Amino acid sequence: MGNIITISRTFGSGGREVGKRLAEALGYAYYDKELINLIAEETGFAKEFVERYSESGFGQTYAIHTARTFTLPYQMPGEQLQIAQSNILKKIAEEGNCVIVGRRADYILRGYDPLKIFIYASDMDGRIERCYAKVPDEKKISQKEMQKNILAIDKDRAKYYNYFCDQKWGDMHNYNICIDTSKVAVKKAVDMLVAVQTSHEA
Amino acid sequence: MGNIITISRTFGSGGREVGKRLAEALGYAYYDKELINLIAEETGFAKEFVERYSESGFGQTYAIHTARTFTLPYQMPGEQLQIAQSNILKKIAEEGNCVIVGRRADYILRGYDPLKIFIYASDMDGRIERCYAKVPDEKKISQKEMQKNILAIDKDRAKYYNYFCDQKWGDMHNYNICIDTSKVAVKKAVDMLVAVQTSHEA
Repeated sequence: MGNIITISRTFGSGGREVGKRLAEALGYAYYDKELINLIAEETGFAKEFVERYSESGFGQTYAIHTARTFTLPYQMPGEQLQIAQSNILKKIAEEGNCVIVGRRADYILRGYDPLKIFIYASDMDGRIERCYAKVPDEKKISQKEMQKNILAIDKDRAKYYNYFCDQKWGDMHNYNICIDTSKVAVKKAVDMLVAVQTSHEA
Repeated sequence: MGNIITISRTFGSGGREVGKRLAEALGYAYYDKELINLIAEETGFAKEFVERYSESGFGQTYAIHTARTFTLPYQMPGEQLQIAQSNILKKIAEEGNCVIVGRRADYILRGYDPLKIFIYASDMDGRIERCYAKVPDEKKISQKEMQKNILAIDKDRAKYYNYFCDQKWGDMHNYNICIDTSKVAVKKAVDMLVAVQTSHEA
């Protein structure tokens, strides 16, 4: 078993960037979208199906600029998918040092004593700006619409997490370090986390 | 106006120790119980009154081993005291660099853009141990009783905070960095925070 770091994050907070840079700085394996291929391979499900349902009930695979609000009755799909995801995360945890972004790894791997990070951003304007950077010019939507979509995606992640876990997504007590990237820049956050993790390894 | 750091904390998490060491490391003024004298002086209230009501409705001045649960109808005292406390915190903020522990400084000083820290501890056994260390041998109570008192004090702080502020105590989104001292030792937490604050100053 290696050293495991899990990154949970709100949408548009830069959490994925923190995870990626942290893995690079520490020389750890990095798992985010990579997990989708592994799960699709293991289960035989289409990648698109895995991507849609591995972390959220709906919405996750809609592009940010088309994300919908959820007026349909909410149904939680993919129990079999969740089991496959759990098994793969545990295999990864056994293999060696790694950083895993999202996918309830903090909960699924709780028996492995991971360092559990939560990344959020208190400034909504910054989140909107970060999301705009990913949308091609011809598909730009209004700030108001973007904010609505960001909050809908967060809500969806929380709902899905709370459904499968017996604890609450985004409650600080379920994580070890929570960082607001509106106040602590991504680079600084990574430096802090490298320092903490290095002292844990030693 | 100086650089301001506010430390909020759950009971028995070592938050005060983090604040004190952080102030020492940065060469900042440190305010915790010191505030009680200042407020007592300003208002003419007894120190005991100020201590009891500056941060909690009840319980705060009972020793840990005698803390009571709150079965009485809950009344929030001391609006005048709160105003005096606000004025003093703002004066302190104007004076220069400082670390302030508790007393809703994160909220009262929000206009000063402080670095807002929340310290908690996910491991209850560790919190109990930390509290035991403060209680003389002849007054030791059972672990169960101690746990009950710790949770009651947290609950009281939260209630008082939520009463006077339009946001929720302990919700990560109201802070910039939250650290679990059960996973990140106090010394390490201080090192991290020094690094962050130093980069903010620069």
